Amino acid sequence: MADPRFFRNNGPLQLGQLAELAGAKLGPKADAAAAFEDVAPLEQATAREISFLDNRKYVSQFRRSKAGACVVEPGLVDQAPAGMMLLLTDKPYRAYAQIAQAFYPAASVARGANPAAHVHETAVCGTGCEIGPGAVIGPEARLGDQVRVGPGTVIGPGVEIGNGSDIGANATLSHCIIGKRANIHPGVRIGQRGFGFHMDAAGHLDVPQLGRVIIGDDVEIGANSTVDRGAGPDTVIGDGCKIDNLVQIGHNAELGKGCVVVAQAGISGSTKLQDFAVLAAQAGLAGHLTIGAGAQIGAQAGVMRDVPPGAKVVGSPAVPVREFFRGVAALARLTRTKG
Amino acid sequence: MADPRFFRNNGPLQLGQLAELAGAKLGPKADAAAAFEDVAPLEQATAREISFLDNRKYVSQFRRSKAGACVVEPGLVDQAPAGMMLLLTDKPYRAYAQIAQAFYPAASVARGANPAAHVHETAVCGTGCEIGPGAVIGPEARLGDQVRVGPGTVIGPGVEIGNGSDIGANATLSHCIIGKRANIHPGVRIGQRGFGFHMDAAGHLDVPQLGRVIIGDDVEIGANSTVDRGAGPDTVIGDGCKIDNLVQIGHNAELGKGCVVVAQAGISGSTKLQDFAVLAAQAGLAGHLTIGAGAQIGAQAGVMRDVPPGAKVVGSPAVPVREFFRGVAALARLTRTKG
Amino acid sequence: MADPRFFRNNGPLQLGQLAELAGAKLGPKADAAAAFEDVAPLEQATAREISFLDNRKYVSQFRRSKAGACVVEPGLVDQAPAGMMLLLTDKPYRAYAQIAQAFYPAASVARGANPAAHVHETAVCGTGCEIGPGAVIGPEARLGDQVRVGPGTVIGPGVEIGNGSDIGANATLSHCIIGKRANIHPGVRIGQRGFGFHMDAAGHLDVPQLGRVIIGDDVEIGANSTVDRGAGPDTVIGDGCKIDNLVQIGHNAELGKGCVVVAQAGISGSTKLQDFAVLAAQAGLAGHLTIGAGAQIGAQAGVMRDVPPGAKVVGSPAVPVREFFRGVAALARLTRTKG
Repeated sequence: MADPRFFRNNGPLQLGQLAELAGAKLGPKADAAAAFEDVAPLEQATAREISFLDNRKYVSQFRRSKAGACVVEPGLVDQAPAGMMLLLTDKPYRAYAQIAQAFYPAASVARGANPAAHVHETAVCGTGCEIGPGAVIGPEARLGDQVRVGPGTVIGPGVEIGNGSDIGANATLSHCIIGKRANIHPGVRIGQRGFGFHMDAAGHLDVPQLGRVIIGDDVEIGANSTVDRGAGPDTVIGDGCKIDNLVQIGHNAELGKGCVVVAQAGISGSTKLQDFAVLAAQAGLAGHLTIGAGAQIGAQAGVMRDVPPGAKVVGSPAVPVREFFRGVAALARLTRTKG
Repeated sequence: MADPRFFRNNGPLQLGQLAELAGAKLGPKADAAAAFEDVAPLEQATAREISFLDNRKYVSQFRRSKAGACVVEPGLVDQAPAGMMLLLTDKPYRAYAQIAQAFYPAASVARGANPAAHVHETAVCGTGCEIGPGAVIGPEARLGDQVRVGPGTVIGPGVEIGNGSDIGANATLSHCIIGKRANIHPGVRIGQRGFGFHMDAAGHLDVPQLGRVIIGDDVEIGANSTVDRGAGPDTVIGDGCKIDNLVQIGHNAELGKGCVVVAQAGISGSTKLQDFAVLAAQAGLAGHLTIGAGAQIGAQAGVMRDVPPGAKVVGSPAVPVREFFRGVAALARLTRTKG
Repeated sequence: MADPRFFRNNGPLQLGQLAELAGAKLGPKADAAAAFEDVAPLEQATAREISFLDNRKYVSQFRRSKAGACVVEPGLVDQAPAGMMLLLTDKPYRAYAQIAQAFYPAASVARGANPAAHVHETAVCGTGCEIGPGAVIGPEARLGDQVRVGPGTVIGPGVEIGNGSDIGANATLSHCIIGKRANIHPGVRIGQRGFGFHMDAAGHLDVPQLGRVIIGDDVEIGANSTVDRGAGPDTVIGDGCKIDNLVQIGHNAELGKGCVVVAQAGISGSTKLQDFAVLAAQAGLAGHLTIGAGAQIGAQAGVMRDVPPGAKVVGSPAVPVREFFRGVAALARLTRTKG
């Protein structure tokens, strides 16, 4: 069970209610009125807890599990241990996420501005906002309803933040417009000037960076990641993007909807990711590229050319995944024969 | 036009005045008294705006542009659209940078120390400084004139910062001497102890790190970058260096003048970069190396040996650029024939 | 000599006393009562200072050194310059670390909570703690004795921190239990939710992250590094681990004792490092791997499979070091002959 010092459990909850919110069907022996206390992994779950099976690799754990209930695909009904109630759905992990959210809902927000926060008199905060101690809300900034701003976080002049957004502690936001339900983690830097200057042996000369950062709804940005503002055009992050920790996004970059950028990856200036493109950990994209919709860029890849929609590339310079592993194999053969 | 919530436009400005500050000549049809309101890209600029052409790839945009004036090389006079005034110079991007700076000058600084700042009684601040709320200025720290320290930033004991420097929000500076006109972005960490310890199965043992970080004039350090102090010698960053976001600089590293270090690159302990060396994104340098003046280290390169002045290397381990791409081609051939 | 603005020298100290605390023997001509003022490198040290020789590459510096005393291996007694006193030990660098610590001891802590700190009424602080201005200590948090929390640092609800730990400025800690004598650098983020969600074209859905971060004793975590909390299990960092700057540690990762993770390296979710594994700079580990005890992962390596204890691997994908360099050589030959 989750440590009660850190997590507040909302249980017990009834199976029927959980099935409904997760869009799952009750299995043959399931009792809608049965109450459960928590979620837990297959191997640890007890009779009072609900688990899930998402990966068939773990079917044997499922067969042995003592969980009182489990979310699974309909095809696995026959393999359930005796006495286990089932919730049936084609997307067990999605359903599990919804059930776990029901047991551990996000804390409600209503503490107002801490007296030690610095909210400028021309800033506007909606209803139900929470502003932590030491936070700074600059002139003309506009926060929607139910926005949370963590301790020590600095919101610059004119910044807009949509309803329900959560900005972690010690973050810094300037020159940006942020949508609804954003989840900005601690230490994130958004809107600082991009890396734009005239390179010159007589002294590099800064080019004013006159764009903004525009962030859609339901975007997550991980701890200590950095998003520079545009040079003239804007830097844009589309609805539903998921960005991990320590990611760099350069000026004028544009991410479509639902893109996923894993830890320590970097996107150079003016590069565009179309919807649902995925950039794995430590990968890097050169500037002025287009990464097609649904393309997958492997971990540590270094991409120097456009990537077509749906393509999977890896390597530095990046090539299609099959070509990359053929190269790895060819080099291994060469090493063996001549090494 | 730049969003007026975030940027204050200083226009209109007269063409003659702009030509003078940018070191450009007025073209044949240019009217020194003509007033312009803003800068803009070639494709968006209107008759009241000034644009620039730096890359001949975009000459066709130049020919079609509706910009009232444009900064270009003298050789392109004949291709200007009718009615466009020209500013002529061999370095159009540099001139554009100066003109854009005239339209969008850095905000002047004079707000003093916020009452919620913590300035130690033995710290010295020059005239015209601005210290944000929650900032901490430690004992015996010395700030020059017109220094800005962002909200929540912590300046440790004894730190010196030169005139006109701008230290962003939520940064942490200790054990360092910083020159004039520095631009330190939010979340930067300077002067923490380096990664120096005796490795031992009985327990690693810290070696006191007794050096400092010495930063020259006109240095920029990007958001969330880290610069460790020296172990005994100092870590040194020369005048005019440009360092991007999420860069790591290890103890005792030395950067000459005008070096450029792009996002997520890393420099290991005791490595030296001579003047104007360039380290592209996500590249890494092993320790105790010398990178020659003007050398260019490609993106994601992993450098294990000294690099001569002016050389261009890439790959991991890094080799000269031509050799690297010959290797890529050779491997591709091999894959095709035997794969 | 270390800059007195930043470092407080505890000398003079007597040679016999230093020999004792460092576990070294006095050499033939050494005078236990001789007093020394400082530590210094071989080439700069004067008659009043103590140096050390750890690497035989520098024996010629040792022969010429004017240091009053030097820590060396017993086998080098004959090569010492006339008049130099010696401290003899098989681990000179370890002994030097202890001697340098004696000259520059960590500042003692006893300033209490700054009036501008925000310590929740239900938080417990041990004796001799120092809480910086603007720091936030959340409800039910428990700090041991002699804990230091830097300015602007945010300690979340329920967090526990062991005796003697030092948490730098502008850090953010939540959902974690931290051992004794931790050294957490500025800007570190510990305990934020991991990168766990159901990927779905209909909108990615967050999976509640219900674990914690458990950190052992004597752990160092470098500036701006990030450690996500577990998804259900905990993220665990063992006793004595040394983690450098800008490192990413994903949810459910487990590090054994004494692991070393160099700057900008990344560890994906659920991967385990056994005791004393070393991960060099910018290396990355895929998820759900086991890295054996004492294994060494080279700089920029990309590890996709388990690594056996004691193995040394490098490359992306990583292979044993000898195999990697045979591949580099084979490719170079191929380039030369066919390029």
